[in-house]
Amino acid sequence: MDKGIIFIISGPAGSGKGTVVNLLREKMPELGVSVSATTRKPRPGESEGVNYYYISREDFLSRIENDEILEYTEYCGNMYGTLKSEACRILDEGRDIILEIEVEGALQVKKLMPRDTVMIMLLAPTPRELEGRLRGRGTESDDVIEKRLRRAKEEILKASNYDYIVTNETGKSSECADKIKNIIQSEHTKYSRMENFIAKYNADLDEIVQ
Amino acid sequence: MDKGIIFIISGPAGSGKGTVVNLLREKMPELGVSVSATTRKPRPGESEGVNYYYISREDFLSRIENDEILEYTEYCGNMYGTLKSEACRILDEGRDIILEIEVEGALQVKKLMPRDTVMIMLLAPTPRELEGRLRGRGTESDDVIEKRLRRAKEEILKASNYDYIVTNETGKSSECADKIKNIIQSEHTKYSRMENFIAKYNADLDEIVQ
Repeated sequence: MDKGIIFIISGPAGSGKGTVVNLLREKMPELGVSVSATTRKPRPGESEGVNYYYISREDFLSRIENDEILEYTEYCGNMYGTLKSEACRILDEGRDIILEIEVEGALQVKKLMPRDTVMIMLLAPTPRELEGRLRGRGTESDDVIEKRLRRAKEEILKASNYDYIVTNETGKSSECADKIKNIIQSEHTKYSRMENFIAKYNADLDEIVQ
Repeated sequence: MDKGIIFIISGPAGSGKGTVVNLLREKMPELGVSVSATTRKPRPGESEGVNYYYISREDFLSRIENDEILEYTEYCGNMYGTLKSEACRILDEGRDIILEIEVEGALQVKKLMPRDTVMIMLLAPTPRELEGRLRGRGTESDDVIEKRLRRAKEEILKASNYDYIVTNETGKSSECADKIKNIIQSEHTKYSRMENFIAKYNADLDEIVQ
């Protein structure tokens, strides 16, 4: 069976990656779901291995130390991250994983699992469009918008670490999700991922023609 | 404007590449058509630059010598080939080119235009299936079939030169053409082909945020 691939999707605030990833999951229900680990306490109704893997902060930190956590982030005093063991389990089942994460985390995943990781950066078609989307929300001050644009600039300066750059035209999230779906399917036909297939093909051909 | 890419499609006899390429052209009428050069004389009704570019054998050979012919083949005493100038003209228009050629020619194109060339090998899903298709034609002797299978073996041994390996399931030529269409579209979003876009993006962002 074909091994799964980790597809990382990054993009500045305003790139629309949340919407696109949701659409992608609808279009590709076969995608694996990687349950995150967290140091947050379970809330009523949540359960271990379904919503999260609940681990202590001490455990979390020691796992980071041992490269057992592919990427993580801290939010409101709690840590959230992707366990390498969880990702490997899903990939070995032949399922792909989508990780919607920021550039630093993405680079960390790529470093820990270089052959299994494909990095996709999502962008609004132009910076003016990006600015328009951020202002269009109408909820943020000029200061916050300027901060987001500066942050976008930093992120795009790291675009050369990405394998693919995909633009998300306004009002065309579904087309954008299709572009990513194309990438996912194409990546599975790359020669480097078909080496076992070719080896078996050769062996089988040898049985037919001496 | 985005520059075009040369997509080479190779595959052993029985891989079904003729059918798949025809379907692909139907699905993607925007694909460029590269008119070949030939040493054959024009037939009644044929015209220069439409059916072929008609050139002398001497001219053809000197163009090969000067790397002006990307790939060529000899058939019934006439030479047929792809002019580099013709390919470049189409690529500069932003159109992609499909070349359905054999492994040796494919490697030659890749050598002359490495950054512009993507190589796709089409295969029947299994060697048994390939054999079945060759026998199913019912027109060839066992000797010819064995020769074709040996030839397939030689071709597949060179698969590592290819970027993608695509299987063509029996009765699913249209799905196979879709897989190639996916590859064509994905290749255009590769970072290496988006460098100009990113440079302009950065410059435009600089105008918005200082």
